[in-house]
This record gives sequence, C-alpha cells and structure tokens, in this order.
Amino acid sequence: MNRIQLSQGGGGLESQALISQLFYRYFNNPILAQAEDAALMTLSGSLAFTTDSYTVSPLFFNGGDIGKLAVVGTLNDLAMRSARPGCLSAGFIIEEGLPYADLERIVGSMAQALQQANAQLVCGDTKVVPKGAVDKVFINTSGVGQVQCQPAPGMNQIQAGDALLISGDIGRHGAVIMAAREGLDLTTELQTDCALLWPQVDALIQAGIHLHALRDATRGGVAAVLNEWAQATGLGLWIEEAYLPISEPVQGLCELLGFEAYDLANEGRMLIALPKSQVEQALSILQQLTDSQQAAYIGEVRAAQPSRVVMQTAWGTQRILDWPKGELLPRIC
Amino acid sequence: MNRIQLSQGGGGLESQALISQLFYRYFNNPILAQAEDAALMTLSGSLAFTTDSYTVSPLFFNGGDIGKLAVVGTLNDLAMRSARPGCLSAGFIIEEGLPYADLERIVGSMAQALQQANAQLVCGDTKVVPKGAVDKVFINTSGVGQVQCQPAPGMNQIQAGDALLISGDIGRHGAVIMAAREGLDLTTELQTDCALLWPQVDALIQAGIHLHALRDATRGGVAAVLNEWAQATGLGLWIEEAYLPISEPVQGLCELLGFEAYDLANEGRMLIALPKSQVEQALSILQQLTDSQQAAYIGEVRAAQPSRVVMQTAWGTQRILDWPKGELLPRIC
Repeated sequence: MNRIQLSQGGGGLESQALISQLFYRYFNNPILAQAEDAALMTLSGSLAFTTDSYTVSPLFFNGGDIGKLAVVGTLNDLAMRSARPGCLSAGFIIEEGLPYADLERIVGSMAQALQQANAQLVCGDTKVVPKGAVDKVFINTSGVGQVQCQPAPGMNQIQAGDALLISGDIGRHGAVIMAAREGLDLTTELQTDCALLWPQVDALIQAGIHLHALRDATRGGVAAVLNEWAQATGLGLWIEEAYLPISEPVQGLCELLGFEAYDLANEGRMLIALPKSQVEQALSILQQLTDSQQAAYIGEVRAAQPSRVVMQTAWGTQRILDWPKGELLPRIC
Repeated sequence: MNRIQLSQGGGGLESQALISQLFYRYFNNPILAQAEDAALMTLSGSLAFTTDSYTVSPLFFNGGDIGKLAVVGTLNDLAMRSARPGCLSAGFIIEEGLPYADLERIVGSMAQALQQANAQLVCGDTKVVPKGAVDKVFINTSGVGQVQCQPAPGMNQIQAGDALLISGDIGRHGAVIMAAREGLDLTTELQTDCALLWPQVDALIQAGIHLHALRDATRGGVAAVLNEWAQATGLGLWIEEAYLPISEPVQGLCELLGFEAYDLANEGRMLIALPKSQVEQALSILQQLTDSQQAAYIGEVRAAQPSRVVMQTAWGTQRILDWPKGELLPRIC
C-alpha cells in the first residue's frame, strides 16, 4: 500500500510533489496557488483570529473524521465571535507510514467542509515525522474571519437576567469517541454532532437577536462553558437539569460508562446568552434549522450565587455544577 | 519532578489552571486576556496569513529552542511578504509527562522572541496527549501581519536581469541540529542562525529597495528556494558557488557528514530578488545589521536555461543545482 514517506516532508522534491498532487488539488483556490510563504488576504474591518490543534483518535468516527472536525471546529470558534467563515490555514503533522489513502480521505473531508462553509484554505504546512514521533496524523487549523456584530459577542456582555440556550442535544461527539474506544457499535443510532454553527449564528444575527455571548461546548462540555462564564462574569448561572436535551443513546452510554452528558464534548453545539425577551424568537429560528432542531432554553443568569453554576436537578433539589475534573477523555478533538 | 498531566489538556479545571498560570503569565496582553474562543484584532488593509508546525528535535539546541523557532519562523514567513510582525496564534500538543520546567522554558523563549519582535500572541490552544502519541511537544504558530509593500514581494515579480542576494552565511541551523543528533559538541563555534528577518526587510523597504521576491531558506535550504523560483517563473537562475557565504564549522561538518551547505535548513536567512541597480545599496544596508553582516550577491536571473538553477562551481565548471532529494533531515524545524 502506498504510504507517506519522510522525504515527503523534507522540503525537497518529494515534498513539492505531495503538496501539488494532493493539497493543491483538493484545496485549489487563487490565493493558495500563489505558493508563497504567506497568503495575502483582502479582509478588512474587525477581524477574529483563532487556532486549534486536532489530535482525535480514532481518525474516522461515526458522522465525521479529523479532517471535517479540523475545519468545522475552527470555523465554529470564529462564529462564536460572530465572524463569518473566512480564511483557514492547515498544518499537518504526519507520521511516516500513514496510508496515503487515509490522508487523501481526510483532505477530501476538509475540502468538502470548506466548500459547505464557503471558506477557503489559503496557507498550509506539512511535516512528516519518523514512525513513533506522532500517532498517525495531527492537524492544526487557524482561522481569520470578519466580525459581523458590534460589539462582538463575548463574556463581558453577559448580564443578570439573560437567558441561556443550548443549540441542540448534548454530548454526542464525546459519546461517539467513547463508544469507538470501547469497541461499541452504535453506528446507526449515534453520530457526532460535528457541524458548522455559522448558519445558526447568521440566522440569529439576521433576525436582530442580541447575542450577548456564544460559546461552543467542546472539551469539558456544557459544564466547562457554564463554569467559565460564571467565573469570568462573577454572576450566578441557574440551570434546569431537566431542560438539557440529551438523546437516548447518549444517555444510555453515560449510564453504562459513568459519565454525565454535560461533561462530554460537543463539536456542533453552542451555549447562547441573550436577553430573556428574545428567547421565543431565537428558539423558533433555531428549531427551523437542520442542526439545531433540539435547541432549548436551559436556564438563566442571576446576580445571586456569584461565580457559581447552580443546577436544579430532576429531583427538585439544587446542587453546584462544578468544573469537569480529571482526565476526562484525552484526544477527543 | 513536576510533569504535565493528561488532565491539563482536558478542558476542565486543570486545563484552566495551566492556561492561567503559565500561558497567560508569559503571554500577557489585553487581547489574550479576554479568554474567548477567537481573538479580536483591529488590523486593516492588505494582510498576510501564514502557518507552520514545529517538530524540531532536540527541543533545545545551540542558540535556540523550539519556542524561539516557533515565533521567529512564522514571523519570518510574514516578513517574506513585507508584512510587519503582528498577531500570532500558538497551538501546543504536549506529551503527557513532559517536565513542566521544559514547557516553561519554551514558553519563556517564545515570550522573549515576541517581545523582541514587537508582536503579540493573541490566541492559543493546548492539547495534552497520552505518552507515546507525540514526541515531547510540537508547536504550531500561525501569524497575521500587515503588508507594507504594494505589490507585496512574490515570485511573480521576479524578472530576467534581477540580482540574487543571500542575507548571510548558510546552513547553520541544519548543521546545529545535525551536530546535536550526532552527539558532536560544537557549542562554542556553531550556533543556529535562527533570527527575525523583519529588521532587515524593514531597513530595505525604508531605503526604497524594490523587493521583487523574498524567501527564507528553511527546509531544503537555498537549493529548494532557488529551484522553486526557477520552476515558478520559468526563468534561469545563475549562481556562483564561490559567492555562497559558508562558515568554517558548517563547511567542516558538511565535509564530515557528506552534506552540501546549500541543502541545509536556515532559520534566519533569506534569498532576495531585486533590480541589479540596487545591489550595492541593499548589501551596504544589510551588512550594517547584526544578523546580516555576511549578506552577499550570489547570482542573477536570466532568460536562458528556463526553469533551471545553474551553478558555476568553484572549479569553473557549470552544473545544474537540483532540488534536494530524499529524507534530508527530518524534524529540522
């Protein structure tokens, strides 16, 4: 089988061949085709800039792969500041011996996700390291996009009285990776939620919703985002456990393996803080879109219980919802 | 000894602690301190965007380390499009068990290099992967900077009659890494050339030099850049071997290990294509700056021998200088 060689990352003839035969073919656009050390962009105005490295294992999982994740994850970080999908960079670190077909499948997924997002990959870097120096392939993507709201959504705009929404059912991505690692076959029932959040953000902006803060609930899940918001704002976040949308297979897996869905990673779900008066309008917009049909009101921001996340449990009691702790699930994204 | 734990990359409590106690402390600036998913920048005009992953082994070497390299390397890619050092992202992929002291030393180097460059680290990402999934630590940096020349230097501006300069003696970075791997102790004589190229580019721009094209000669060395330029322009590049500045320790090591200095990586040397009429002025500017005292004229661009790099050897004969081939030196940068 055709496998990636060290020489394809050396900067010489074989590197050039890999770049032109694989990357330029899938990511073809006029900026990238200039083949310079840095791409030139004509963006202007207020810009958002973000980066993420993707180390997920396994590389391919139900509903996605590391390539789709690397594009969607970084564009989602831009969207959380109301930035439209714009220009992306990609840095590949490939283990010598990776099947070429795997790399091509990943690159193909990236190209498809970019096309769906109407974004461009404008610069890249490829390293090939000796066997054992990295596990198969890691991808970094960084993104630059134009901010659409002034001010951009941010924690500093969260205020007492705001409502808190979640854009869909939680924990799918974490559950899919966990199931794959445990060798459980849940293909038919359970897919990652990995999806672009921009269409939802865009629809809310177009409707005049005041997006105080947005955050995609990746590593550490919903619990981590809520705690970060509570800590940064000094306000109290009140959550109704029963309102958290959790699909049946995710709930089942959590019970089986002893996790909580709100600690699990998502790759296409966001928390939204917004004025309470706009909740109904926002939910009705979100529920019309494919990936946010399960969008729900989950709680609100109060001045009481400063810096804490308080959860009203399904049993009617209250408890503090703490930061997720410990190893959680390494290489979830 | 204090070592990095998996939990410090999980997105929970321990991740937050690592980020605030290490990264925010060293990279402290108002944009990063917002702690949002994407940083907001107020750049405008024509922008350059670039990315590089750094996998160098060993992590620490004569005259630098992976941290300095990760900042300087990416800012140099911006400088090659005449872009001033601007905003940087950093994505760390850390192996479980890495000594905390090593990570802190690397982060300290990055902070120092950023300060010297007058650049800011505005967003980042930290992953910790299980032992064996990555070798110690890999770093990706991406950069965005404002382009100063219109048009920006690029291969498409190289023309027959242009002169070719190199900004200093070649092959140091490759030689240092090679020596370290072979266990040769050349500490006193041989240091990496890893250094910021922006001061040189800026000085040339200020003096009104027409920078047709710039390219830092990293992986694949001077030979790779010259071949890329020849291939992209369809012009012939004529080089005088005797004009290539090579230090004695680099030359010695090349003879010992059977390499050519023009195939070795540099991390602070650039090729410059410019009008022949400005060669003397450009050299006199470069030779006054610390890191480019050895700047030299090395050849010119001609219409003859299209797409070829022709080298006039020290023996008076001519030969084709080809792309570097084969494995070269993995993990050189």
